[in-house]
Amino acid sequence: MPEKYSVEDFLAKAVDAAKIAGEVIKHGFYQTKHVEHKGQVDLVTETDKKCEELIFDNLKQHFPEHKFIGEETAAACGATELTDEPTWIVDPLDGTTNFVHGFPFVCVSIGLTIGRIPTVGVVYNPIMDELFTAIRGKGSFLNGKAINVSSQTELVKALLATEVGTKRDKATVDETTNRINRLLFKVRSLRMCGSCALNLCGIACGRLDLFYELGFGGPWDIAAGAVIVTEAGGHVFDPSGKDFDITSQRIAASNPLLKDAFIETLKQ
Amino acid sequence: MPEKYSVEDFLAKAVDAAKIAGEVIKHGFYQTKHVEHKGQVDLVTETDKKCEELIFDNLKQHFPEHKFIGEETAAACGATELTDEPTWIVDPLDGTTNFVHGFPFVCVSIGLTIGRIPTVGVVYNPIMDELFTAIRGKGSFLNGKAINVSSQTELVKALLATEVGTKRDKATVDETTNRINRLLFKVRSLRMCGSCALNLCGIACGRLDLFYELGFGGPWDIAAGAVIVTEAGGHVFDPSGKDFDITSQRIAASNPLLKDAFIETLKQ
Repeated sequence: MPEKYSVEDFLAKAVDAAKIAGEVIKHGFYQTKHVEHKGQVDLVTETDKKCEELIFDNLKQHFPEHKFIGEETAAACGATELTDEPTWIVDPLDGTTNFVHGFPFVCVSIGLTIGRIPTVGVVYNPIMDELFTAIRGKGSFLNGKAINVSSQTELVKALLATEVGTKRDKATVDETTNRINRLLFKVRSLRMCGSCALNLCGIACGRLDLFYELGFGGPWDIAAGAVIVTEAGGHVFDPSGKDFDITSQRIAASNPLLKDAFIETLKQ
Repeated sequence: MPEKYSVEDFLAKAVDAAKIAGEVIKHGFYQTKHVEHKGQVDLVTETDKKCEELIFDNLKQHFPEHKFIGEETAAACGATELTDEPTWIVDPLDGTTNFVHGFPFVCVSIGLTIGRIPTVGVVYNPIMDELFTAIRGKGSFLNGKAINVSSQTELVKALLATEVGTKRDKATVDETTNRINRLLFKVRSLRMCGSCALNLCGIACGRLDLFYELGFGGPWDIAAGAVIVTEAGGHVFDPSGKDFDITSQRIAASNPLLKDAFIETLKQ
């Protein structure tokens, strides 16, 4: 049976869903400071769940035959296996710590894989009103304007982003700070802004030159960002240099010119 | 001779100057990606100098008898000693690495000390259009709305900000990452966004709970932020727990509830 929708339709519906969820996030974002701490945690959970429901309901209405993987659903029901079917992979609220603290790096991330390949990506930061979009083979855009990765060729002039994650056992923390220590001798400076999806978009639009993260939540953090980076002329790959695996909870991204030197430094 | 201007006049003129410089920064910000690397460095220097000139010219017109300390002037002519006289302390462009990379955390910082005490503060991020203002004894504001530090009482739920600075000798880098390692076991998460003045404003409006930085450029990075934090109900202090010294290139800031525990952890 021929698909009655085009890939442009997929993107348009994903943008609609992201905007609707974005309104809910924006509303909650300016409330968090006015609720007691217990209330803040509830507000995160509520916002997360409400946004995932809104996005899924919206997309299922148009694409009932597609598969769906969401952070909230996975947390509640266990992870759904990724198949070759068209699959929407959704993080309804990336940057939950930022959301609680009112730090403006929060976003909705909606990706569509077809044959397990990230094909449509939408990342929307409703606080800064930045909408990143991409369709495989058709370029990446920020608020409708084409974006490209940086043209930086030297590690020593590169701006690196990473995150410290949420695990606080000694082995993980030591590994994290030892890696940062090694990298600081090689790059210009380091940013940590608390959203994996927005870090990938930062690579895509050239604000950042290098990004890696190990041990993040799941494919919902990167499904949209991966195609946004790729279509902006960047590469996503495993920090070891191996091929990118959307289910591995490991990612690195850069422009093509810095990739080899970046992998070399990450492996040391 | 009685001062013919009120402290509100000082603030109003500082805001005018910050807005004028902000336009220049905004213009340059969206250009940096379109110039060659050599050009980028020139653009930073040019923007920095042009903004400092604009701010100084503007303020001197109204307050010719005041003293002036600026990052660019200090770089060119050596540091001016801070006296008890009313002294404008200006960073025309805080977050120069962000400016070069197009990362949206850049700002103008204009502080006025009287009797060496930070008395008026203006920090303006022209990209996100956020204007932080404070007058000693009269509260802190973000785009005209009163702001307050967070009410967080537990380190383990606190969001910490710091920066890795620009020194890359082994002793400094090791000390930096060892300190981060120790702190990660105590706090919720870590942010590094590349602007000392905006980190202080993050404390003031409760987006961040804890901030420290060692070895930043000079008093221009903190003169405005210090009064913005204090007037928002926060504390600025030396990371050792000693009193804040505006000339020391060392600062920590938090709400009053977290201060003792933060100092304890920083000292370990």
